[in-house]
Amino acid sequence: MKFNLDAIDGNARACTIQTAHSTIQTPIFMPVGTSAVVKALDTNDMREILDTQIILANTYHLYLRPGDETVNKLGKLHGFTKYDRSFLTDSGGFQAFSLSDISKADEKGIMFRSHIDGSKHYFTPSKVLDIQYNLGSDIMMILDDLVALPATKERLTLSIDRTTRWAKESITYHREKQSDGIGVNQNIFAIIQGGIDKEFRKISAESLCAMDFDGFAIGGLSVGEENQAMYDTVEFTTPFMPKDKPRYLMGVGTPEDLVENIERGIDMFDCVMPTRNARNGTLFTTFGKINIKSARFKLDDTPIDPACDCYTCKRYSRAYLNHLYRAKELTYFRLASLHNLHYYLNLVKEAREAILKGEFQAFKREFYNRRN
Amino acid sequence: MKFNLDAIDGNARACTIQTAHSTIQTPIFMPVGTSAVVKALDTNDMREILDTQIILANTYHLYLRPGDETVNKLGKLHGFTKYDRSFLTDSGGFQAFSLSDISKADEKGIMFRSHIDGSKHYFTPSKVLDIQYNLGSDIMMILDDLVALPATKERLTLSIDRTTRWAKESITYHREKQSDGIGVNQNIFAIIQGGIDKEFRKISAESLCAMDFDGFAIGGLSVGEENQAMYDTVEFTTPFMPKDKPRYLMGVGTPEDLVENIERGIDMFDCVMPTRNARNGTLFTTFGKINIKSARFKLDDTPIDPACDCYTCKRYSRAYLNHLYRAKELTYFRLASLHNLHYYLNLVKEAREAILKGEFQAFKREFYNRRN
Repeated sequence: MKFNLDAIDGNARACTIQTAHSTIQTPIFMPVGTSAVVKALDTNDMREILDTQIILANTYHLYLRPGDETVNKLGKLHGFTKYDRSFLTDSGGFQAFSLSDISKADEKGIMFRSHIDGSKHYFTPSKVLDIQYNLGSDIMMILDDLVALPATKERLTLSIDRTTRWAKESITYHREKQSDGIGVNQNIFAIIQGGIDKEFRKISAESLCAMDFDGFAIGGLSVGEENQAMYDTVEFTTPFMPKDKPRYLMGVGTPEDLVENIERGIDMFDCVMPTRNARNGTLFTTFGKINIKSARFKLDDTPIDPACDCYTCKRYSRAYLNHLYRAKELTYFRLASLHNLHYYLNLVKEAREAILKGEFQAFKREFYNRRN
Repeated sequence: MKFNLDAIDGNARACTIQTAHSTIQTPIFMPVGTSAVVKALDTNDMREILDTQIILANTYHLYLRPGDETVNKLGKLHGFTKYDRSFLTDSGGFQAFSLSDISKADEKGIMFRSHIDGSKHYFTPSKVLDIQYNLGSDIMMILDDLVALPATKERLTLSIDRTTRWAKESITYHREKQSDGIGVNQNIFAIIQGGIDKEFRKISAESLCAMDFDGFAIGGLSVGEENQAMYDTVEFTTPFMPKDKPRYLMGVGTPEDLVENIERGIDMFDCVMPTRNARNGTLFTTFGKINIKSARFKLDDTPIDPACDCYTCKRYSRAYLNHLYRAKELTYFRLASLHNLHYYLNLVKEAREAILKGEFQAFKREFYNRRN
């Protein structure tokens, strides 16, 4: 992975990340393609319509179905999905933790049961890397020890200690594998933990950033804490992260969250919000959210957002989308997902342009003004 | 509507129908867009990917939701859906008959209850035309009296008599409306009934074809009778239909049904089979049907049909589609529907080319040979 810091505006950054499969200009939003597909869209949509440079896929889901060995046999993620740009895969730890009825972390890893068939599995730092070698993702996330917030000091201490130990194990394992010719073009990111406690975040960031990872993520946020607590934690943590490597805030968030955290020095985001909200009828616009289900759109012949030039807004009216939603037509899900993802991708693109021009603050003011 | 008979090969015909919105070359298959959308696809898919010239939409569904008045206010079907080619709308009678818990035909029309909210409605010959004027379809079907097969002679007699009376009422009403400037560019088709009884089909065909309709349909088939009985009925009925007007076989059918009925002089078809089967995992190929759910496709890196050049086959493997189906991904429905509709549209296109060259019999032999 090649990394270049193209511009800094305050703490906001515009970077270029070059993987073996694509050039990613940050700030970037990564659409979530849980099962090697972004829900309701195909990889041609991602490439030709949305022009995404990177998609996130979930290690937990692909390990269980169709199985990482299967994906490997079919040409890894790029061959299987025919998406020839970049993939980031998570470690699977978060899903093992949140989707499984029974999951339990110990010193070696996380035991969990499949949400599909109840079968028992064990994720360790090396196991989740082996799965990700099979998936062939451009960026792999290491296993970390997650904590539900609020958490006790004891639990947070355990979490950051274990996360650091697993990180050491991961980077050692990965560099060994690479010297054996495995995962040579795959990059590895560590995940800073510590809840919303400054001291724990500092310890976690310093211990992880001392290791030779290709990039660093902030994990364990957007799990129910106040927005301001999230922003403060990011603001406090980013100064401990290297300037010459990508910074990824996991699982975040709303359009406001993106703008606030770009301002605080984050380069990469992912979230199910644009696609999940689309399916539930919530559409993002420059002037805020609308609910397309609303009866007030039944005769509204204007596009979702008159300022939007997405596939859906160029073609269809609110009235037609309102009808498709109410008639429970599958078509609705694709059109709404295309719009919401376009909104997110366009937002980070505009943020980048503002940073390059040194106008991020004006961009941020305009972003909030349009919503009022 | 302008009609040209381009070629005849045996009884098989290649025609050109020019509506106010598109040029339709027959034999043609009309994808079913029940609620003003072909399930899982958008109208851009229909135009740019499948290049369809005509879509069928259901009067019953659109009358109930979003309401034909609403569609009218939003620019009729073409403005509402942004599909600028042709629409055919059925009369709504079949759905009133099949979807309603309670439906009852009398001399004046059909009373039924909405399958959505149980509300009571009454379709008459003029009412269903009024609805279709609001929808603005290029081809309107008149209300006919449907019979479930097998039926008694008495019920069949009543059906064809009533159908003829309603047809007279419909054509008179339509020509009056047109002289008032309503539905000027809208065409009207009558529907021949009579079950699988030759004498009744003859009476129905002769009495309807004596009237000034723009085209004629054969209705009341593909309702559970043997395939051969359907083919025989069509073969017997088409000679009573005018040579210089379109012939439409409603609700038919399998690829074999299309080939057999094209041979017997049918120009137009519609059926939910390609899209419904797609959603259930059944995909059509030149060598027959396959079920994409099957475990044998899990590691199959070839396209659905190596002979197919559809959007899906050019991009994705059976293994990926098998995975998307099993993971219940919405994306699957669009990719499978695009393939199956491409198969149907390509089949009738190849049939037309064969007819133009006087090689329909060779085409038919090849069609069956590939499947064995």
